Amino acid sequence: MATANYSHHFSHRNIPFGIASSQTHEKPQAVSRLGNTILFLHDLHVQGLFKDTKDLPENIFNQPTLNRFAALSKSEHQYVRKKIQEVFHHHGLDGFPSASEEVADAITMHLPMVIRDFTDFSCSLHHVINAGHIVAGNAKPPPSFFKFPVGYQGRTSSIVVSGTDIERPYGHFLNPKVIDPQREETIIFGPSQKVDYEVELAAVIGKPLPMKKRLHAEDADDHIFGFVILNDWSSRDIQGFEMSPLGPFNGKSLGTSISPWIITPDALEPFKTSIAPQQASGPTYLQQSKPSTYDILMNVEILTNSDKTTVGVCPVQSLYWTPQQMIAHSVSSGSALRTGDLLATGTVSGEHNLSRGCLLETTEGGTKPVTLSDGSKRGYLEDGDVVRITAMAGAPRLGVGFGECIGRLTPARPF
Amino acid sequence: MATANYSHHFSHRNIPFGIASSQTHEKPQAVSRLGNTILFLHDLHVQGLFKDTKDLPENIFNQPTLNRFAALSKSEHQYVRKKIQEVFHHHGLDGFPSASEEVADAITMHLPMVIRDFTDFSCSLHHVINAGHIVAGNAKPPPSFFKFPVGYQGRTSSIVVSGTDIERPYGHFLNPKVIDPQREETIIFGPSQKVDYEVELAAVIGKPLPMKKRLHAEDADDHIFGFVILNDWSSRDIQGFEMSPLGPFNGKSLGTSISPWIITPDALEPFKTSIAPQQASGPTYLQQSKPSTYDILMNVEILTNSDKTTVGVCPVQSLYWTPQQMIAHSVSSGSALRTGDLLATGTVSGEHNLSRGCLLETTEGGTKPVTLSDGSKRGYLEDGDVVRITAMAGAPRLGVGFGECIGRLTPARPF
Repeated sequence: MATANYSHHFSHRNIPFGIASSQTHEKPQAVSRLGNTILFLHDLHVQGLFKDTKDLPENIFNQPTLNRFAALSKSEHQYVRKKIQEVFHHHGLDGFPSASEEVADAITMHLPMVIRDFTDFSCSLHHVINAGHIVAGNAKPPPSFFKFPVGYQGRTSSIVVSGTDIERPYGHFLNPKVIDPQREETIIFGPSQKVDYEVELAAVIGKPLPMKKRLHAEDADDHIFGFVILNDWSSRDIQGFEMSPLGPFNGKSLGTSISPWIITPDALEPFKTSIAPQQASGPTYLQQSKPSTYDILMNVEILTNSDKTTVGVCPVQSLYWTPQQMIAHSVSSGSALRTGDLLATGTVSGEHNLSRGCLLETTEGGTKPVTLSDGSKRGYLEDGDVVRITAMAGAPRLGVGFGECIGRLTPARPF
Repeated sequence: MATANYSHHFSHRNIPFGIASSQTHEKPQAVSRLGNTILFLHDLHVQGLFKDTKDLPENIFNQPTLNRFAALSKSEHQYVRKKIQEVFHHHGLDGFPSASEEVADAITMHLPMVIRDFTDFSCSLHHVINAGHIVAGNAKPPPSFFKFPVGYQGRTSSIVVSGTDIERPYGHFLNPKVIDPQREETIIFGPSQKVDYEVELAAVIGKPLPMKKRLHAEDADDHIFGFVILNDWSSRDIQGFEMSPLGPFNGKSLGTSISPWIITPDALEPFKTSIAPQQASGPTYLQQSKPSTYDILMNVEILTNSDKTTVGVCPVQSLYWTPQQMIAHSVSSGSALRTGDLLATGTVSGEHNLSRGCLLETTEGGTKPVTLSDGSKRGYLEDGDVVRITAMAGAPRLGVGFGECIGRLTPARPF
């Protein structure tokens, strides 16, 4: 699927990192982007662009993933980004060897990292209240919600790069026409009838942390290599049946899409802001004195054959917990951080109807379908629907964008 | 901690794989074991022992993990095992170059694999009934239990090799003296007061499976490189407070120990047996016509400074779901298998009091402490306690053993 049309997301203020291949660069390798021009970083490195530092290994950009680069110290990431900005500032795109450049449409983007642990959190109070009301008839969040960012581990083998088709899964769930979980015949094995998207922001870990080291939320930025958009595709019926008491499993493993461009904390720094909700006082490791989330709006559309419709505009600032708090909580009982860990916010839902980040909320469990601009209605996703999430920090033409995270729901194949 | 005293676990019937280093073999590398003799496989390969096959790369055993070897076809694993058995049969230990041998006490064992996804299942009906009764006052398993092996994803960054200390974690939990989850002051942040072990068997994936391929339980053996003992250390109070509704998280991330020796399906083949419980009929992908679990007894002891006490003898055969069914279920909604995935059974608990695989069950949530042989009592583990799990397929002196999975609980460090 096209990666162009996002020129304004990738101005000189951004300088993201990704992994791409093309006809002239057959092996997947590290890239950055300026407007619609893709820069192959190994070519630039060989040309001597980064010769002022001794800490960038020779083949650091000639790897099929960004893990090794991400594991370097933050000053190296900053150096590379600034160097590209500096050249562009003085010479424009002419400052880069033309052999290192390709247009965005000519390349294929790949999964940028080997993902180690994937943790998905529940950072949105609005989402918890809405989902609790819809699923369990109880809008009261569990007491844990206000104490720390509640999270669970997700499958990493089903994480795919934007553009990958997602297949409607088979699974077990309660027959929605006969709701009595104790009656054997009410449990169906078949294609999920409630496939949903979830709009999320995810942090990618660069610098690792050994086991038993713990981390204060104030120091978590040091470990963030960057951020991506994440679509946590969910089968609500499979998830609902399987998740008590051990949590979501196969209902979340049909696929988890991430956007291919990793946006650095340095690019997002001008858009740092305090979170909107007031947090209760908690343990020291979660306390943050400075603003630490970002003014990022995430936009989700459903694309049908004939049209596209925005179904959610979701503000990251409305989340109750920050990415830094997610990270600090995840290591508080002794476990490690590793380069390539992915920690996602959970559904980003704001307080308004149009700021809800999944159909479960937007359609109240499918009971109040949304009308798309082609006139069709959706309770949940239909086969062939394409879900596109974009994100922008700051104002549309002056900010830093994430590009898109897109995927098509394909029909279930008979089991 | 000593790796010897398990000579009888590792007869010529076994031939396990692991990763070890020593004074003469400084770099961690692949090993096998015969009695108390450790065989360094790269040395044997260089000597030409495995020259009859062209499919074993030159440096396959000179890697810090077994992932590359595990990813080879099963016939290669079988070839190496049989070759070692053949030499031993004809020449005894004299058949191996002495430079390739070390005694078990002289080596250090390492984590044998890079673990990709770690999935923990809930395969024991006895455990679910007991734990449900103790924790929620409801012994009735959720309806999902009888439909498929219920599972959740675990943290992989806290998986450690046997012998690693486990630290009592800090976390949030309800003050056991004031149980009213809606009252703010009843929630404590402090050192867990309920640290437990869980006796589990885990399958290690060799041959990968791409996304959307699905798998029948009958074909799952093809993907199993081997099995290890797993201790899923659990903080019951942290877990209890955090797990509703998204499942266990930090309560399980203080550490997960695995035994260092990977026991092959070929070694366990003579001990294949049908499962004890009668399964309800389910979807085709979970059905198995042939016996497919193993006659393995897992023994768990608590070692104090003065004594040791067996606190559980847990039969794998008593599990309701088989390892092959766990694997088939894990990919049924579209996700992949990767070399190094770890899929564990959940607590192995049989029907009798002494066959329970965790203190939660054995002491009924700490209310009926067990008396150790030194006269002290345990509701849950105390600082300094060592938990040792051993496992044996078949009769003690004629079977195939797993060695041990051992770890010491160290005190919480102030946060």
